[in-house]
Amino acid sequence: MIAMAMVGLCACAETGGGARWIWYPGDYGIWWGNSLQSRRLQWGAQRTPSWPLYEPHSRVLFRKDGLKLDADEPLEVRCDGTAAICYTDAKGAYRESSAIQGRFTLPKNAVKIEIAIYNALRPPSVWISGEHLKSDSSWTVTWTWSRDVSDDLPCESSIRFTDPATPPGLARLPTRRKNPVRVERGADGGLLADFGEETYGYLRLFGVTGCGAVKAIFAESEAEARAVELANTGPGALDGWEMVELAPANEYRHPVPRGFRYVHLVPAGGDAAVASVSIDYEWKDAPLKGSFRCSDEVVNRIWDVAAHTLELTCREVFIEGVKRDHWTWSGDAVQSFLMNYYTFADYDGCRDTLWTLRGKDPVKVHLNRIMDYTFYWFDAVERYLVYSGDTHFARQVYPRLKSLMEFALSRLDADGRPANREGDWMFIDWAPARLPNYGGVTSFEQMLLVRALEAAASVADGIGETADAASYRERAGILRAEIVPRYWNAKKGGLMHIIYKDGRTDPLITRYPNVFGLLHGYFDEAQKKSVVENVLMNDAVMKIQTPYMRFYELESLCALGMQRRVMSEIKSYWGGMLDLGATSFWELYNPDDAGEKHYAMYGRRFGKSLCHAWGASPVYLIGRYFFGVKPVKAGFAEYEVRPNLGGLEWMEGDVPTPFGKIRVRADASGVKVRSDGGRGTLILPSGHRIPIPADTTVEEATK
Amino acid sequence: MIAMAMVGLCACAETGGGARWIWYPGDYGIWWGNSLQSRRLQWGAQRTPSWPLYEPHSRVLFRKDGLKLDADEPLEVRCDGTAAICYTDAKGAYRESSAIQGRFTLPKNAVKIEIAIYNALRPPSVWISGEHLKSDSSWTVTWTWSRDVSDDLPCESSIRFTDPATPPGLARLPTRRKNPVRVERGADGGLLADFGEETYGYLRLFGVTGCGAVKAIFAESEAEARAVELANTGPGALDGWEMVELAPANEYRHPVPRGFRYVHLVPAGGDAAVASVSIDYEWKDAPLKGSFRCSDEVVNRIWDVAAHTLELTCREVFIEGVKRDHWTWSGDAVQSFLMNYYTFADYDGCRDTLWTLRGKDPVKVHLNRIMDYTFYWFDAVERYLVYSGDTHFARQVYPRLKSLMEFALSRLDADGRPANREGDWMFIDWAPARLPNYGGVTSFEQMLLVRALEAAASVADGIGETADAASYRERAGILRAEIVPRYWNAKKGGLMHIIYKDGRTDPLITRYPNVFGLLHGYFDEAQKKSVVENVLMNDAVMKIQTPYMRFYELESLCALGMQRRVMSEIKSYWGGMLDLGATSFWELYNPDDAGEKHYAMYGRRFGKSLCHAWGASPVYLIGRYFFGVKPVKAGFAEYEVRPNLGGLEWMEGDVPTPFGKIRVRADASGVKVRSDGGRGTLILPSGHRIPIPADTTVEEATK
Repeated sequence: MIAMAMVGLCACAETGGGARWIWYPGDYGIWWGNSLQSRRLQWGAQRTPSWPLYEPHSRVLFRKDGLKLDADEPLEVRCDGTAAICYTDAKGAYRESSAIQGRFTLPKNAVKIEIAIYNALRPPSVWISGEHLKSDSSWTVTWTWSRDVSDDLPCESSIRFTDPATPPGLARLPTRRKNPVRVERGADGGLLADFGEETYGYLRLFGVTGCGAVKAIFAESEAEARAVELANTGPGALDGWEMVELAPANEYRHPVPRGFRYVHLVPAGGDAAVASVSIDYEWKDAPLKGSFRCSDEVVNRIWDVAAHTLELTCREVFIEGVKRDHWTWSGDAVQSFLMNYYTFADYDGCRDTLWTLRGKDPVKVHLNRIMDYTFYWFDAVERYLVYSGDTHFARQVYPRLKSLMEFALSRLDADGRPANREGDWMFIDWAPARLPNYGGVTSFEQMLLVRALEAAASVADGIGETADAASYRERAGILRAEIVPRYWNAKKGGLMHIIYKDGRTDPLITRYPNVFGLLHGYFDEAQKKSVVENVLMNDAVMKIQTPYMRFYELESLCALGMQRRVMSEIKSYWGGMLDLGATSFWELYNPDDAGEKHYAMYGRRFGKSLCHAWGASPVYLIGRYFFGVKPVKAGFAEYEVRPNLGGLEWMEGDVPTPFGKIRVRADASGVKVRSDGGRGTLILPSGHRIPIPADTTVEEATK
Repeated sequence: MIAMAMVGLCACAETGGGARWIWYPGDYGIWWGNSLQSRRLQWGAQRTPSWPLYEPHSRVLFRKDGLKLDADEPLEVRCDGTAAICYTDAKGAYRESSAIQGRFTLPKNAVKIEIAIYNALRPPSVWISGEHLKSDSSWTVTWTWSRDVSDDLPCESSIRFTDPATPPGLARLPTRRKNPVRVERGADGGLLADFGEETYGYLRLFGVTGCGAVKAIFAESEAEARAVELANTGPGALDGWEMVELAPANEYRHPVPRGFRYVHLVPAGGDAAVASVSIDYEWKDAPLKGSFRCSDEVVNRIWDVAAHTLELTCREVFIEGVKRDHWTWSGDAVQSFLMNYYTFADYDGCRDTLWTLRGKDPVKVHLNRIMDYTFYWFDAVERYLVYSGDTHFARQVYPRLKSLMEFALSRLDADGRPANREGDWMFIDWAPARLPNYGGVTSFEQMLLVRALEAAASVADGIGETADAASYRERAGILRAEIVPRYWNAKKGGLMHIIYKDGRTDPLITRYPNVFGLLHGYFDEAQKKSVVENVLMNDAVMKIQTPYMRFYELESLCALGMQRRVMSEIKSYWGGMLDLGATSFWELYNPDDAGEKHYAMYGRRFGKSLCHAWGASPVYLIGRYFFGVKPVKAGFAEYEVRPNLGGLEWMEGDVPTPFGKIRVRADASGVKVRSDGGRGTLILPSGHRIPIPADTTVEEATK
């Protein structure tokens, strides 16, 4: 168990252990995120995101200060880029710069070592290993070459990149061969392959004869795969098709991996033919660490399909869907993070995604060009720190957290509230009716801003930036205190959606601010009761259709202890998708739709994404509110377990943590918990609190 | 003559004519500048600059608005990167994104076309050619993907990049074979080749037999080439040597070009031998357009060697020297620009250098980490606009000019004067004695700041940013008015070097502020006279040793009409280097040195650069103050010619302009001028002003 715990810890604790490749914080995530996001397929071409992309620094300077060596230290050095090494002895500067792709001996009087690396193609990185000196996050790095080491950031590193032969910029994701479960050949020489479930990878064609073009339609439903007439470049065209030129060959391998379940090869000129087809399935090298089994097979299947949805979308960075956007959206990613903490616990992936979303200075537009999405990012950073215990990250990210907050605050209205400015998108949600989000201040955006400020204050506090923290907290307090007095509609018993610039209120009540009000402690008991009755349980209030906002709606019910109701919703909503043959969860599901209508969105017949990260929320709800596992201190140093069966007869499974796993089993008669580390507290329905020592099975009756 | 004039114009006027590759302003220069600057050779390894490098945007969006087509427009499209094209018709958005590497037909109802390009390896760029629509600088570009087209910048382009098959990121400099004039073989199997003059290129070794390592010493003097004992990695080592591993081959070509005159191959293990050696000489594809001949053969040789020095150092971007730093320094580059305007007139090179120096936002440190060098950049921008007439550049560069000025002003002291802050280097000059530049405000830096503000005001005015211009000018006025009252030392009859923070003055008089005071109009006639007598002609005032500051010293004498004295200085100082066998001009020359001491600098035996851009100033002084050719309006739309023989019997030659050339011939009896364009004024010694119509030979007697 100890070994397991150590491996877990290493994923976050970036120092200690062997040498690692190190790089400028964020540069790898940003670079890798670009390469993924630029592969979106749309109407026969690759599209890039419609917001700013950023670049890694091409030249950075790595430093390690305060050396104390007893003897000359022979070092193995690997640099990804053009490099020069130098060191300073106790008397002053003295430089050395030869033969550093290999061995280098640091003399014992060296007190500081510096390595400059230039790489115009990939993030500059370095790996150094000696008996006493090793590259890890105790090294610092600068791109400005400032003389003042206190301006440096701690280097970023990862447990994934320890092999001196493989710098991060040359590492590739693993792949494995996957064959279709069914292949159908058309009279026209075409071929339709069904891979049995939603998948992702490089198309491989074997035994190519003849010459010619084929349209390769990558589709998520069979209907989409057969909609050959839409494989064009006009409006309403299929997203996922590409023209492939074939010539006689033993094998053709598509250069770019795609997300799909079906591939339809449609002849488009010439006489090329294909003997067989397969893919190289590509996935993130992060194993599934969480698990769940219960008495209800539908719920088990929902958990599995949700985990599969996450495996597909939590990639280089966390994207919203594998067929269409293939981009990283902050609001979506926040949810992927939470689901991820209870399944893959891929902390590297979270960090790379946070960097990709944030990019670099200067900040010119909101993240993803959406105001909500800027605010969500702060929440994601704070929660990442709590779940992962990644202490380096707070210091690495703080300068960019601060400048993003400066940008966000610079765009508030004259009263300091989040009204939209020209070019800002106020998304909130896809709703059956257009939401009135513009022309004033919505209670929802203001609550998000409060959350962002509170999260920023918490991160600032964590690294001793107490003046910033106080300033963020003061502003949050003022904005928070306004919400209920300004937006509460006594007649309707809930928060209104918007107050317009001219002071005019709109009596419209939507679920969004009321759900957030419940989740973020805005209400007294009477208001809480009113919101549940008059908004959440009131069918006259516009329903939430996306799994995106349903995530928070169900979470708020869980927070109120209504797990039984939530489980029934999970079974009907997510079970409904399973009944329609879903092998991954969708961007949106409306039980009232029928047939091909399920695939339509954005006014296009197959516009909907059928593998959408935000569709996987049951894994989070189950881990967080049924197992009831929640970190209280960073990295689960302290945590709580508050199981709630929510109507299940029994459930059992694992919640991953940086130190290993927390295993929970509960049934009507009792609960059993065992953890690889941390100081846990088991909270029984009675409110009774029982300590959970590490590596000890705690068993309690609940009747 | 007309055709010549048109070609000249195209170099700056970026619209009209055929299609050109276009890119985000500065991205090509920054990227190309990085690739050159990162090739510095030091002690056996490659070194990168000790200031921030910047990166091209990996994804940008090109736009052309306001289209009016009478018919569908077939386009040839070439994109360097992953691309998606879309257009908007009069009714709204409609996207199209296929087959854009080739032909694309834009329908006649299109009003706007947009092309997004992603390239993680090189600056994203596009080339489009149709009957009516062509890619040029009338297109705009954004990296933030802002919706507001008014935030866009005009695209950058160049007459060099019109070939659809060669995007800028894949273009290479031309090379030609060059053989040594002398080869000496040593008893140890080594080989020393002398290429007869300072050169630059890829070393080629032919007929390699045996296996082993050689140290390739790239040297500027024969003494350096033979200093084999210094080809190591210790302190005081040679800059220009590299370890080369040889194996039997018809030919070895060194992967990186180097600057040198001598190559010494020194066996370093094994039995490799080489039959013969040559280089692929590499130079910028900018022909020498200026010319000069006069009655004095020494002066002719000085002009030729200066032009050769410039050909070597004015490369991808303008570097200070080809052997050592191989970097772009702002203070040096400003002088290269001025020399360039009278020789190669490589406006692209100026622009690429300005971009490389400036980089991108955010600005964290001074350019090259030197306060003076930030200030020089503004001067260089303004003068570039005047010489080149490149109207696009002002709009392209202005946002970065403004933010650099914000940075510079943010670092002034509480009184708004340029004192140094922690980490700022106050260079001014290499002087025989250490200059007291710290701990107060030097008159020199304050004058540079005034020049920067005045230049910024002029650029701002030129593009209608009148509020900024007024603010810059007001600040400049206040600082300018202080100089003489604060720094004038009546006893010594000149400006003092520094006033310390505590108000204490230092009676030290240096030439620097007094030279700048003369050049930038700080003095009344009496003060002027005093400065010439008591400072410039006063041997008790510390002499200027570098050609860098000698440039301004001699320029100030020219401005006073003392050409005869300047010519004598040119002949003795630059002629002195020729007498010592110089084939390019040096970083520093002290006539009192002897033997190998001429090559020493920075405490190292061969530390001095023998091919240093700032050594080439005679080409500027001759063109500007002997031919007396000066642009008065942007691009020489108006210009003056004020010849001054300065003691020469006769002189003749060409000054390049954007529209072609201005040819001047003068002797004791008269002057003859002919210009390919512009409205010129010939100013005779008598003060008489005579118009110079284009394409007309104007001949005037001066006796």
